[in-house]
Amino acid sequence: MDGRVLVPWEQNRANAPAGLRVDVYDGDAPPPGDLSDVVLYVLPYGRRHAADLLPRMPRLRAAQLLTAGYEHVLDVLPDGAALHNGRGLHDASTAEHALALILAAQRELPRWADDQRRRVWRPHYTRSLADARVLIVGYGSIGAAIEDRLRPFEAEAVRVARRPRPDQEVHGIADLHGLLPEADIVVVVAPHTPETTGLIGATELALLRDDALVVNVGRGPVLDTGALLAEKGRIRAALDVTDPEPLPADHPLWTAPGVFVTPHVAGGSATFYPRARRFVDEQLRRWAAGEPLANPVRLDTVGG
Amino acid sequence: MDGRVLVPWEQNRANAPAGLRVDVYDGDAPPPGDLSDVVLYVLPYGRRHAADLLPRMPRLRAAQLLTAGYEHVLDVLPDGAALHNGRGLHDASTAEHALALILAAQRELPRWADDQRRRVWRPHYTRSLADARVLIVGYGSIGAAIEDRLRPFEAEAVRVARRPRPDQEVHGIADLHGLLPEADIVVVVAPHTPETTGLIGATELALLRDDALVVNVGRGPVLDTGALLAEKGRIRAALDVTDPEPLPADHPLWTAPGVFVTPHVAGGSATFYPRARRFVDEQLRRWAAGEPLANPVRLDTVGG
Ligand SMILES: NC(=O)c1ccc[n+]([C@@H]2O[C@H](COP(=O)([O-])OP(=O)(O)OC[C@H]3O[C@@H](n4cnc5c(N)ncnc54)[C@H](OP(=O)(O)O)[C@@H]3O)[C@@H](O)[C@H]2O)c1
Ligand SMILES: NC(=O)c1ccc[n+]([C@@H]2O[C@H](COP(=O)([O-])OP(=O)(O)OC[C@H]3O[C@@H](n4cnc5c(N)ncnc54)[C@H](OP(=O)(O)O)[C@@H]3O)[C@@H](O)[C@H]2O)c1
Repeated sequence: MDGRVLVPWEQNRANAPAGLRVDVYDGDAPPPGDLSDVVLYVLPYGRRHAADLLPRMPRLRAAQLLTAGYEHVLDVLPDGAALHNGRGLHDASTAEHALALILAAQRELPRWADDQRRRVWRPHYTRSLADARVLIVGYGSIGAAIEDRLRPFEAEAVRVARRPRPDQEVHGIADLHGLLPEADIVVVVAPHTPETTGLIGATELALLRDDALVVNVGRGPVLDTGALLAEKGRIRAALDVTDPEPLPADHPLWTAPGVFVTPHVAGGSATFYPRARRFVDEQLRRWAAGEPLANPVRLDTVGG
Repeated sequence: MDGRVLVPWEQNRANAPAGLRVDVYDGDAPPPGDLSDVVLYVLPYGRRHAADLLPRMPRLRAAQLLTAGYEHVLDVLPDGAALHNGRGLHDASTAEHALALILAAQRELPRWADDQRRRVWRPHYTRSLADARVLIVGYGSIGAAIEDRLRPFEAEAVRVARRPRPDQEVHGIADLHGLLPEADIVVVVAPHTPETTGLIGATELALLRDDALVVNVGRGPVLDTGALLAEKGRIRAALDVTDPEPLPADHPLWTAPGVFVTPHVAGGSATFYPRARRFVDEQLRRWAAGEPLANPVRLDTVGG
């Protein structure tokens, strides 16, 4: 409890438990005073140079990031300091965008937007999300948030992760080929790793029903762009992430039939800030109570 | 249990309780034989002439429609026959489209569709549904289905109906003006009646925050089109129903800033058929068990 805490927002100072010495550093104004007494540092979001202060904090016991990625601080983290990341803070935003993409495709929103531009009123019967079987490929933190949002739409979710967890009805990726023929919608939300590159490729797309929908909110290379284009509209797609990214103006994905593209905006919405502020309040409460902080990064496994 | 039952789908004949005499009439093939022994008639959906058979059913005890509206059969319903309608069968479809419109507006899907058409990758931070306060004006059957779908998005729903129901936290319409200034999103799903014409007009729109969103999936005239246009983009709108309808090509709503239009397609999606078939199965089960059928139309109040 001795030593100083640096937080990015005034709210966190105002809500801090009594007895903590808390200063605000938002990444814009100069950092407050000599930093040698800082023991907990919550780095401001979206300020790359915030990490530059770390070497000036010899007594630091923990650094808290508000991003999921942490590679950029490994080289400057003082010896003996623990690292905590912001995983989960973008879940609500990303899951919400996944639902927006699913509904846009099923209810044909891009078509109505185009009809509006042409000023034509041309209703017709559409698909629906209700009764659809939705495969969630990468059933982790965001995948579970997507499932929560799917449930009241009367859709059926099928969970797929790397390894099976039978007690939680999670399939392992080895089951994928058996599951694809029965799916109406496949949501890809796996991270990009050597094993996930091209995870959804020509073989997998060929196993899908005509007019099945593939939604990608994970990473572009997990879906094989060439294989999708080769389907020539037999499979529909709604993609927040693409390969390559950004998409160059002459890329065929822009005009491929049945493909809707958003420019990697799933995680970036107004949900982030209130969630991040609450999370920091909660970490300060844990810190003052002597409880372990949430979201530790296991540094022993980094690079492993 | 004596007499014959006419159903629109083979599934209903296959699933019918033992002991019922059931024939299929789908509205296309000629009706099966002499109709004087028909006691329960489930009229095929979307076949106007299906009502023409009613006068040939002197022993009819109940007619079951698959639409919510029933005005078109009142003149031909045999004396003594009960009438049942299809209310609820379009709820899932309409609520799903309401969510699609909300997410489209908050996550700027029409903008991304337009950027795709121009082949430009231009990400930016958007609004979100999470943390929004959503006023549901017309909290009936569809309104409740909208609320169910909103809940996991971490949005707050506020219920407004004609009359207050304090035990269910439903506000009466008299509270509307007090609630509008605190709303981020207003979903209009009230029916069109003399009292609801222009329910959301210049006064109501003026009470809303800058950039608030009005979604209309009820009926066009409940929102005053001229008043919305006069806001010149200060208020955003996503409208499945409009006044007039269809919108003529030269109508200013097509190009009004911040307005997204879909051509009255909320109720018309693939959800309907499986729900309608299950509903008919269930009505046949009730009929065979001697239970009252669901969805009675109270004919004594018609025209009252
Ligand atoms: N579009 C955007 O703006 C945006 C925003 C945020 C995140 N994302 C992406 O979303 C990804 C998921 O985030 P998260 O927070 O949900 O991560 P997470 O909680 O770590 O979950 C990742 C899931 O992917 C599964 N997985 C890993 N390798 C796999 C493989 N080879 N085959 C099948 N499943 C595999 C994991 O399975 P196990 O549980 O078996 O290990 C885990 O269930 C991130 O990595 C990021 O790329 C995108
Ligand atoms: N866009 C589409 O494709 C589509 C599809 C289906 C239906 N709809 C529209 O949606 C409407 C609602 O359907 P529903 O099945 O939910 O009907 P419902 O169950 O009868 O509910 C209607 C609700 O509107 C409320 N209401 C009536 N007059 C009002 C007023 N003056 N001020 C405020 N609230 C008022 C009622 O309040 P009380 O409970 O106090 O009476 C009730 O809660 C239908 O009438 C139809 O116009 C549109």
